Amino acid sequence: MTTTTSDEYSVIGKRPIRHDGVDKVTGKALYGADMNLPGMLYGKMLRSPHAHARIKSIDVSKALSHPGIKAVVTSDDLVPLPDKNAEVGEDLYANMKYVRDRILASDKALFKGHPIAAVAASSLHEAEELLSLIEVEYEILEPVTDVEAAIEKDAPVLHDSIASFSLGENNFESSNIASHDQYELGDIDKGFSEADHTLTLEREFRTKTVHQGYIEPQNGTAWWRADGFVTVWCSSQGHFGIRDATATVLGLPVSKVNVVPMEIGGGFGGKLPCYLEPVAALLSKKCGSPVKMFMTRTEVIEATGPTCGSYVKAKIGITNKGKITAAKAELYFEAGAFPGSPVGGATACMLSPYNIENLKLDGYDVVDNKPKTTAYRAPGAPLGALAIETILDELAEIIGMDPIELRLLNAAQEGTRRADGVVNNKIGMIETAEAVRTHPHYISEKGESGNKLRGRGVALGFWRNNTGPASCVAVVTPAGTVNLTEGSVDIGGSRTAIAQQLAEVLNIPVEDVNPQIGDTDSIGYTSVTGGSGVAFKSGWAAYEAAQHIKNQLIERAAVVWDTDEDQIDYSDGFATHKSDPELKLSFKEIAAASNATGGPIVGSAGVNPGGVGGSYSAMIVDVDVDPETGKTDVVRCTAFTDAGKAIHPDYVEGQIQGGSVQGIGWALNEEYFMSEDGRVLNASLLDYRMPTSLDLPMIDPVVIEVPNPGHPFGVRGVGESPLVPPLAAVANAIHDAIGVRMSELPMSPNVILNALNNKKNS
Amino acid sequence: MTTTTSDEYSVIGKRPIRHDGVDKVTGKALYGADMNLPGMLYGKMLRSPHAHARIKSIDVSKALSHPGIKAVVTSDDLVPLPDKNAEVGEDLYANMKYVRDRILASDKALFKGHPIAAVAASSLHEAEELLSLIEVEYEILEPVTDVEAAIEKDAPVLHDSIASFSLGENNFESSNIASHDQYELGDIDKGFSEADHTLTLEREFRTKTVHQGYIEPQNGTAWWRADGFVTVWCSSQGHFGIRDATATVLGLPVSKVNVVPMEIGGGFGGKLPCYLEPVAALLSKKCGSPVKMFMTRTEVIEATGPTCGSYVKAKIGITNKGKITAAKAELYFEAGAFPGSPVGGATACMLSPYNIENLKLDGYDVVDNKPKTTAYRAPGAPLGALAIETILDELAEIIGMDPIELRLLNAAQEGTRRADGVVNNKIGMIETAEAVRTHPHYISEKGESGNKLRGRGVALGFWRNNTGPASCVAVVTPAGTVNLTEGSVDIGGSRTAIAQQLAEVLNIPVEDVNPQIGDTDSIGYTSVTGGSGVAFKSGWAAYEAAQHIKNQLIERAAVVWDTDEDQIDYSDGFATHKSDPELKLSFKEIAAASNATGGPIVGSAGVNPGGVGGSYSAMIVDVDVDPETGKTDVVRCTAFTDAGKAIHPDYVEGQIQGGSVQGIGWALNEEYFMSEDGRVLNASLLDYRMPTSLDLPMIDPVVIEVPNPGHPFGVRGVGESPLVPPLAAVANAIHDAIGVRMSELPMSPNVILNALNNKKNS
Repeated sequence: MTTTTSDEYSVIGKRPIRHDGVDKVTGKALYGADMNLPGMLYGKMLRSPHAHARIKSIDVSKALSHPGIKAVVTSDDLVPLPDKNAEVGEDLYANMKYVRDRILASDKALFKGHPIAAVAASSLHEAEELLSLIEVEYEILEPVTDVEAAIEKDAPVLHDSIASFSLGENNFESSNIASHDQYELGDIDKGFSEADHTLTLEREFRTKTVHQGYIEPQNGTAWWRADGFVTVWCSSQGHFGIRDATATVLGLPVSKVNVVPMEIGGGFGGKLPCYLEPVAALLSKKCGSPVKMFMTRTEVIEATGPTCGSYVKAKIGITNKGKITAAKAELYFEAGAFPGSPVGGATACMLSPYNIENLKLDGYDVVDNKPKTTAYRAPGAPLGALAIETILDELAEIIGMDPIELRLLNAAQEGTRRADGVVNNKIGMIETAEAVRTHPHYISEKGESGNKLRGRGVALGFWRNNTGPASCVAVVTPAGTVNLTEGSVDIGGSRTAIAQQLAEVLNIPVEDVNPQIGDTDSIGYTSVTGGSGVAFKSGWAAYEAAQHIKNQLIERAAVVWDTDEDQIDYSDGFATHKSDPELKLSFKEIAAASNATGGPIVGSAGVNPGGVGGSYSAMIVDVDVDPETGKTDVVRCTAFTDAGKAIHPDYVEGQIQGGSVQGIGWALNEEYFMSEDGRVLNASLLDYRMPTSLDLPMIDPVVIEVPNPGHPFGVRGVGESPLVPPLAAVANAIHDAIGVRMSELPMSPNVILNALNNKKNS
Repeated sequence: MTTTTSDEYSVIGKRPIRHDGVDKVTGKALYGADMNLPGMLYGKMLRSPHAHARIKSIDVSKALSHPGIKAVVTSDDLVPLPDKNAEVGEDLYANMKYVRDRILASDKALFKGHPIAAVAASSLHEAEELLSLIEVEYEILEPVTDVEAAIEKDAPVLHDSIASFSLGENNFESSNIASHDQYELGDIDKGFSEADHTLTLEREFRTKTVHQGYIEPQNGTAWWRADGFVTVWCSSQGHFGIRDATATVLGLPVSKVNVVPMEIGGGFGGKLPCYLEPVAALLSKKCGSPVKMFMTRTEVIEATGPTCGSYVKAKIGITNKGKITAAKAELYFEAGAFPGSPVGGATACMLSPYNIENLKLDGYDVVDNKPKTTAYRAPGAPLGALAIETILDELAEIIGMDPIELRLLNAAQEGTRRADGVVNNKIGMIETAEAVRTHPHYISEKGESGNKLRGRGVALGFWRNNTGPASCVAVVTPAGTVNLTEGSVDIGGSRTAIAQQLAEVLNIPVEDVNPQIGDTDSIGYTSVTGGSGVAFKSGWAAYEAAQHIKNQLIERAAVVWDTDEDQIDYSDGFATHKSDPELKLSFKEIAAASNATGGPIVGSAGVNPGGVGGSYSAMIVDVDVDPETGKTDVVRCTAFTDAGKAIHPDYVEGQIQGGSVQGIGWALNEEYFMSEDGRVLNASLLDYRMPTSLDLPMIDPVVIEVPNPGHPFGVRGVGESPLVPPLAAVANAIHDAIGVRMSELPMSPNVILNALNNKKNS
């Protein structure tokens, strides 16, 4: 496989109308909550009203005696826990307990909204009403819902197993640190000693829990049939993941569970986990009918995974020429009720734009009484970038160097070792930074805006991108079209981007490809739509399936011309006889003849490709800060991302715009307001303030293409990288506007007013 | 490919529980009429009350002005007819007119029940009521509903185009002969001259229209979406055929139509044609919602394709040693309202058990005012066999030879040329006849039964079997199971029979294969579930898909052992290192490691295999005839079929039993009673008399296995051959009981009583 960097593609790089477009704009596309089956019942979850409580008893007898109740389930219905006392039993036990307790709590409720039990009834409203018949006795415990409070020595203990790990072998003087990871390169002390001591800055950053804010609430419909096979219909970012998680907590082999992917109304990482599906399946098992469950918006905010609040202390030293000599940071990220914060994403990526010889990064995963955090577009990386990119901005200001110049001086490139040990292949850091430096926005005057304070900020970002198993089946119809079944849930137009890669190989119009997502019984294992990996891995599978088809096209042409296959070329959409170039058969002609030349042409492929290429990104943002109200308006924003190769530039631009907007929301407005007893006080979209189109200018996307040498078409992946720079870029812009370095998110009006007041008073 | 005749198979030839069994016995399997979609409407067809009428006008204005009407369609909504006057336009025009007029009549109603128009409404009952608002003006014409009447010189003319063909170039002196085919071998006159003139018999046979009598009425749900793609859910014997037919009459490319196969409640040939689907699609296009249509039983009997009534005149001559010297026949078969009777199946098969040097067969396809006939299990062959097998029985009786002996003396074998010109490959005629001759039933005394007259009959049969394109996709899961998607609708257990052939190659338990039928967008073109071809062709596709998987298993083992693929064998479910036989990896181990060794393992195949092997069959039947009532009871029945190789013997036996029962029903009871004005007088299952389990003894099936050298596992196909002998076998048994040669079907009590009376009076 060689990378083609030519722009002489016939399909790739074009902007065809997406295959699912009309269905979606006409409201015909079916999402999870649209499922309707004959005899279907409705399930509803009983959730903990307390953020931290011991569950002393769950009495379902009253519920069971009500004639409207079709089924009740509790954690007792999940697969039994493994033997704690067996050899290597303790870890297995703890892991399975986390997995089970996330679905239905057993001994403790660990956040307000934690699932306790569920019922099925004929209607949703009846199910909601009947929840009150389940009697749960709680012993209320003190909650902790802040990462710094959670690591205090006397903080409430969530999990005894974590307390023993944290206090015992690790001596963290905290009961809630679930894990600690460290990256170290070079000699950190030597590095800081080489820096100018006046140019060694240490800063602290605090951020709040924010939610991905997808439009569609979680949902799941399950039908457990008499033959022991379970079918699940749901919206997710990976139906194979839902299958595996569902099978695990139900104690079934994966071959007994078929998950049918419905359309998904946004995920951003938040629809990777499994919440409702196993519960709907258990309810269905008990009552014999299909059972549908879906969340309200309040349930989504209270009980699905947002991303973490964080506390980060970071330090960078540079020489007076601007060379970074050392960087270190400690990062404490909330995991929520169970281990698993995105701190690893932050430590792996925060220093990756730079070539830093001496570095040390300590990441801590901290449990507290909030819903288990989940991935959110480039998980953790925006918080790492917030620290590094604002300190670098400050350092550049101190030495009077252009901030992009400073970054280019320290730019990572091919051969540079990243903090996580990966040695860079060909990367686009320099091309990205150069694109910023030469962009009309960057070199323009920032202008003025009446009474408001205008500032401009810039920041860089990096996301490593992922790969994983993927598969495609491609069937040629006698009409000369291709039905393409792939395994990646389509969130942002990937049906078309994958179809383009198949069409490119065969040199056929992408409109002649009919892509669909197969259920888990119909297609090979395909890893999640996440890690910006879909265009990379499923695109690669489509490329291989197209090669498989191409071989068959050549075989069929050989049958028609009664010659050997090696006498035939396939290119530009035609099979040609090498000895007689007048002999040509088009793709459509071979397709039409396929049944007569050996049967239907069916291509298939399963891949798990290496060769992932990380993506660099940047943002230039101009803001107006109103000194009266503290409100910040974004007035101009340009966002850059290295796509490697933009298969469908529209969707790359869409990813850049969407990621930028989410980053701006995170920077300026979004946060979970927590009560002292651990409740989310703004669990609705009226009170949880996300930016709308009225709040923002058009985001100007700039697609950079430094082909990834590890992919047939040079794809890198663009879903996440655009969300990395905005937090820091906006903070830098606000500093430029008001002259104060911001150290906490969101930078909401009250925070800005406080900053302005403190500045005035200092 | 070599045929393995060994019985050392690990999966083939066993009798596993069918994969869809529990779903079906628990009522969870979804049939076409179970479809339910949000906002779905119901469509209903307006049908002609007249068997033959000119449609002068269709006024839908009243219907359209009713608020309950969601849509109305007539033939004007179908694809326009091609230009009659263009070059080669006339044939195209006539063919397309037949195709269109079968779906919705344009200028003429050609049978009672002919679709005229359709409406959609919110409920079925509303739709039924609203049909009365469509005003159709008919000019009633004289109908003809009998094949002999239809070929009379002054019979009513159905189609001007057929009349001009029949009267004009062919000079048939009939307006209703749509085609004439002739098979001729040797010199027919010379052949008869070599027969003993006292041993040259000519006989006439008359049979009535009979229906397949499947349990489930036809149905179709369609959703024509805004993007121009149409999804159809229906029960059929071939969803690719429904796709193609629907696309044709709607003027769409096949790539715009996806047909989802629902479970099917019996077909027997009757669910090959398309009736409702395009109409439901047009209604859906007009109203934007999905539309479901399904037939009542009366509609099924009046307006779907039964098999034909027939008139056959046949003549056979033998020597006094029993050697057949010549055979000839003229066959007039009803096509119904449009051309296409099964006469070709009769002429191709009726003489195939025998090696006859001189033969001449003339088959005539005759249109009349009945629903267009359709395939019915071995289409036409039972009617051909009725003539030949009863005449041979009579000849054997005359010369005092055992009837099987006579047949063995004339047996076709490898190298014999059949009437249709095919030279036999290895066939099982002799083995089948020998199985009869040596069977305990054949050599037993037939016994007595009080006042009733007991008789025994025997007959042979042949069906040629079909092939066609087929495809499979087989995905290996990490759990070491295989999800198998195939394209053949499963009527009689073919999911399991196909899965067995895949499992045999991989040497895994068939329970670890999860077979499903893919929709037309998910699998390669697969021809109909008909012609007894499914176990042959889709089994072959599964065999090839398994080989594709096997190659990948070897590749993966090579990755694990870091060796070349040619160092690895796969057999008995294990990959083994040739140099170190201690190194073994099981199928499950390779599957579990697949994502780590290159990605998911996905096999695929498209085939259109040659090598079809015909199947011989036979029946021995004992009957008791009540001389008081004329009622015939079958008291013992043994049925023989050459399966080639019985992949799943249970389902082969089921096919033998089912075919036998349908043949007995055809022989004894079933018929369309027609009124003078061309209505079916017994259009309900109360009045259309099919045998039930109470009417018949257990049919004793005998599976013969003469492997087909043209298939990897020797498969021939058994769906149809068992229905060929019963008509003749029962007629021979009745003759044996009452001493009268029967010449018309059904041999119902009144016919038997007439025969007994005539015999008494003669």
